[in-house]
Amino acid sequence: MITSPHNEKLKLIRKLHERKHRARDGLFIAEGEDLVEAARDAGLEPELELVAGEDVEPHLLDAVSTLGSGTRVIAVHRQRWSEPGGDLSVYLHGVGDPGNVGTIVRAAHALCDGPVVLGPDCADPYSPKAVRASMGSVFARPPARGRADGLAGMLVALDGAAEASLGEVAIEPPVVVCLGAEREGLPAEVASAADARVRIPMRTDAPDSLNVAIAAAIALHELRNRMAGHG
Amino acid sequence: MITSPHNEKLKLIRKLHERKHRARDGLFIAEGEDLVEAARDAGLEPELELVAGEDVEPHLLDAVSTLGSGTRVIAVHRQRWSEPGGDLSVYLHGVGDPGNVGTIVRAAHALCDGPVVLGPDCADPYSPKAVRASMGSVFARPPARGRADGLAGMLVALDGAAEASLGEVAIEPPVVVCLGAEREGLPAEVASAADARVRIPMRTDAPDSLNVAIAAAIALHELRNRMAGHG
Repeated sequence: MITSPHNEKLKLIRKLHERKHRARDGLFIAEGEDLVEAARDAGLEPELELVAGEDVEPHLLDAVSTLGSGTRVIAVHRQRWSEPGGDLSVYLHGVGDPGNVGTIVRAAHALCDGPVVLGPDCADPYSPKAVRASMGSVFARPPARGRADGLAGMLVALDGAAEASLGEVAIEPPVVVCLGAEREGLPAEVASAADARVRIPMRTDAPDSLNVAIAAAIALHELRNRMAGHG
Repeated sequence: MITSPHNEKLKLIRKLHERKHRARDGLFIAEGEDLVEAARDAGLEPELELVAGEDVEPHLLDAVSTLGSGTRVIAVHRQRWSEPGGDLSVYLHGVGDPGNVGTIVRAAHALCDGPVVLGPDCADPYSPKAVRASMGSVFARPPARGRADGLAGMLVALDGAAEASLGEVAIEPPVVVCLGAEREGLPAEVASAADARVRIPMRTDAPDSLNVAIAAAIALHELRNRMAGHG
């Protein structure tokens, strides 16, 4: 039983709150029973697992948890990364909110066969918040890293200012749905390199934009439906 | 210039962090320049507006802000509530996460003409987190309150265990898309009273469920497309 806050395992968990340490060590933390179970369901063995009251005094585990008090378990896992690919996948550029990144990982797991490819300036999909938002999909479907100009297939850029709507564009798999930050959108060089630029149709009195995870999921759902119809 | 943390205006703002005070006073807070501007764009006059460095010492405004340090402005607004209605709207039951509620308010603003109707056990759409997630759509399209058995139109319940998929069901406007909590789903009495129960088609290796805001947006997008096609 760990009884000291200076224990090396607790220090490791605390370090993994920071992106630079996660990147250096290639590790990340899964906090809470649901995520730890999701990792187990995906067949993954943790590098380390600490259960409150069994392996560590509960208040010491709480102190290194981003969930706050009452954390039952924290596991340390090795990061895994996929290669870009699949008939339908997602490319993100400058999506900085970890909750959105995690939600997109979860939606892609449900709706497409390819991974979420993270381009420059995206939130770390292995941050505690992104892992939680992925609801464990980050275990079952690890994200990929890449750049738009290195991706194979038809790049479909979502762009609120595009003339064509999502339903109008002819698609030819493999398709990569490309999304940028909510305000800035995709950088010009990515948008102009895309094979199609489309918008999700909105009401005339609509807000300026959709949440990026909402836009990604709508596009994946519609393209998946159309690809199934064409197949 | 407010220079004391005991100022009544600052006390009011602090009180409005709590749901019971928001309910009692019928007020809520908009924090930050984007939301304050969204309220102005929607033609709303604040009951109170405090600008850092003009009306109040910056550190005192920071201290009553849920945004943390650097808050430029906080406004207090009167809550507004719509009546249920529209050709396409959303009913939520037991959706307790304020971020999801706010994201659904934003998506509904973009994708349907009716409001988001909040049933029992939902997060307060006027909490700071929900208002922020709505990105100001809560100003332009105030939510409604109601219960499923009081709503007019065709109730389409989203249910991951339903046999029919969203694309298969015949729809007849007005349509109300009904969603429950992510795990529990809709309570049995709401699901069984619905005119149709449908699932959003997912991959066979998919996670157990979609995020509730993602599911709502996919359903609104698809039903809106179909209603436009039929209209």
